[in-house]
Amino acid sequence: MSGFLINADDMEAIATGGAFLGTGGGGDPYIGKLMAQAAIAEYGPVTVIDVEDVADDALCVPVCMMGAPTVMVEKLPNGQEAREALAQLEAFLGRKADALICVEAGGLNSTIPFAVASATGLPLIDGDGMGRAFPEIQMVSFTMQDVSATPMVIADEKGNSSVLNTISNVWTERLARVQTVQMGGSALVALYPMSGLQVKKSILRNTLSLIREIGQTIASEKASRRNPAEALIRRLDGKRLMTGRVVDIERRTEGGFARGTATLKGMDQDEGSTFKVHFQNEFLIALNDRDEMLAVTPDLICALDADGGLPVTTEQLRFGLAVTLIGLPCDPQWRSEAGVDLVGPGYFGYAQTYVPLEELPNGN
Amino acid sequence: MSGFLINADDMEAIATGGAFLGTGGGGDPYIGKLMAQAAIAEYGPVTVIDVEDVADDALCVPVCMMGAPTVMVEKLPNGQEAREALAQLEAFLGRKADALICVEAGGLNSTIPFAVASATGLPLIDGDGMGRAFPEIQMVSFTMQDVSATPMVIADEKGNSSVLNTISNVWTERLARVQTVQMGGSALVALYPMSGLQVKKSILRNTLSLIREIGQTIASEKASRRNPAEALIRRLDGKRLMTGRVVDIERRTEGGFARGTATLKGMDQDEGSTFKVHFQNEFLIALNDRDEMLAVTPDLICALDADGGLPVTTEQLRFGLAVTLIGLPCDPQWRSEAGVDLVGPGYFGYAQTYVPLEELPNGN
Repeated sequence: MSGFLINADDMEAIATGGAFLGTGGGGDPYIGKLMAQAAIAEYGPVTVIDVEDVADDALCVPVCMMGAPTVMVEKLPNGQEAREALAQLEAFLGRKADALICVEAGGLNSTIPFAVASATGLPLIDGDGMGRAFPEIQMVSFTMQDVSATPMVIADEKGNSSVLNTISNVWTERLARVQTVQMGGSALVALYPMSGLQVKKSILRNTLSLIREIGQTIASEKASRRNPAEALIRRLDGKRLMTGRVVDIERRTEGGFARGTATLKGMDQDEGSTFKVHFQNEFLIALNDRDEMLAVTPDLICALDADGGLPVTTEQLRFGLAVTLIGLPCDPQWRSEAGVDLVGPGYFGYAQTYVPLEELPNGN
Repeated sequence: MSGFLINADDMEAIATGGAFLGTGGGGDPYIGKLMAQAAIAEYGPVTVIDVEDVADDALCVPVCMMGAPTVMVEKLPNGQEAREALAQLEAFLGRKADALICVEAGGLNSTIPFAVASATGLPLIDGDGMGRAFPEIQMVSFTMQDVSATPMVIADEKGNSSVLNTISNVWTERLARVQTVQMGGSALVALYPMSGLQVKKSILRNTLSLIREIGQTIASEKASRRNPAEALIRRLDGKRLMTGRVVDIERRTEGGFARGTATLKGMDQDEGSTFKVHFQNEFLIALNDRDEMLAVTPDLICALDADGGLPVTTEQLRFGLAVTLIGLPCDPQWRSEAGVDLVGPGYFGYAQTYVPLEELPNGN
């Protein structure tokens, strides 16, 4: 049986890599890292296993946080809610979980499951449902393979919870989102309970290994006093979209999401140009000053601090910050018709049509 | 064992009496009457039992509709949702219900439980949790006796549902209300599962018998070509607040409630005066033209068509309609400090303090 152990030190690389693939959203993994490190100190390291080592009839459960990242960083989970959500789902199903899953290989939700895995002693499967971060429940590869998001448990830190059963994963999102808002803007959930066989068909593989490797690359490039952008672009088949300073940032928390637009003034080779990047928790579309798309969801738009080299989340964007935006191709299944329907620009209300990153113009 | 049978014909009186004690809200019982009559035609009559005949360890479950009456009359329940909500609650509890309860002795929720009782063959207990209608989940005598509203099931006609578990009945209201809005403005719920012993301590007794008697009184007075107002006032220790025509009606559906104000121009002995009645699903406060209160929640404000003599709901109020408003004293427990906190004018956002009906001025 293959697999590897994650201890407290390893969480540094996972949090950094998760912040990068978080495409600006999903919440700052820093909080999840602290939660995971505290759990590992108390309960011991986490075993990450290959999906091929999961029994076909195993019960596998993703656990994650739901809500606006702007709220999550102010209303910290106490570490108990996610375990409570899992325990309630197990009680409802009348069966204990055999393994845990990350819904996102990005943001807070790439680190919180490590805390739950450590506390429960359950292994975590190497993979996730997005290969990045996305804002809504139904936006996972599990939906593409007809896995139901329910029964799902949503729980808050006060002791309120509910078990949802819905006719579609979009209905799960609707009913869970309004409860998240009532619960104070964030909540912990256990959902998409599935068999090992379903996991093998639907999970995006080895993405936890990938974010650890991304985090290690960022750390070693920084140690060599290089900006990690070039190394990451090479490793991930991506491209540099632009480098510039934030000159305007407009943001609002509405309907349980952090929405907004950042305007950037180009620097270095992009001197003289202006760029815009729109976000809805995650960066979703980047445009140059002729309103040409440089990258668009579901392809990834990742931000690195142009000076320090660390990933930047949308809530960290502030006037004067210099960032490099990097475009990465998404998992091939997001580029199918069903994938673009689920997470393409049209779903988020943009007029643009999806065009693969490779076919879009470079920078200005 | 005492008790009585309710067949399809009896539902006429129950619906009329329920509309009267519905204090303008709770939805037009007409729809519930049709549902109950259809169920009785298919499954047979309903047995209404005295609460003293319920075993102390029996599982007793209120079932009702939740949402804005303005929506309920347009989005009719198909009769299956309430049974589905009950069945899911039974599955969650791992036990079948022994008896059903009405949460309200007013409006739609005084008739829908008859449909469920007929279809399931379960007896209905003679009593309810309000002695009238109120707009929110926690506003029941059960809350006053520390009965938890959860586990509660909320279900819609599409097949979505959830099982809530909350730290207080106010939290139940919050999390269920936002789901009701998402579900399209109305939903069916099964909640406050309780033992026979808890029912005996908390239920307001014999209110189903009472609304049947009220309905019978209205029918016999109308048959004798008398307006039923005087007979009802005598029987229920109430008083006439005013008689007048609607000259203005302002209404809006917001946050899952039907809110508004009706202005009435006095006629007959009230000629020359103007009155206002404010509602939030139910009539909550009646004022004369010196802004003196004539009656205020939790005391009941009931409306009768001054010409036809039938009860009038807030959604039936229209320009030119002549109505008689009747004040009735509420159940004594609503007049306790805890009762006034739960359902008094302050909770609904009115500046006025509760004064018992008997101490308020008569009319203009």
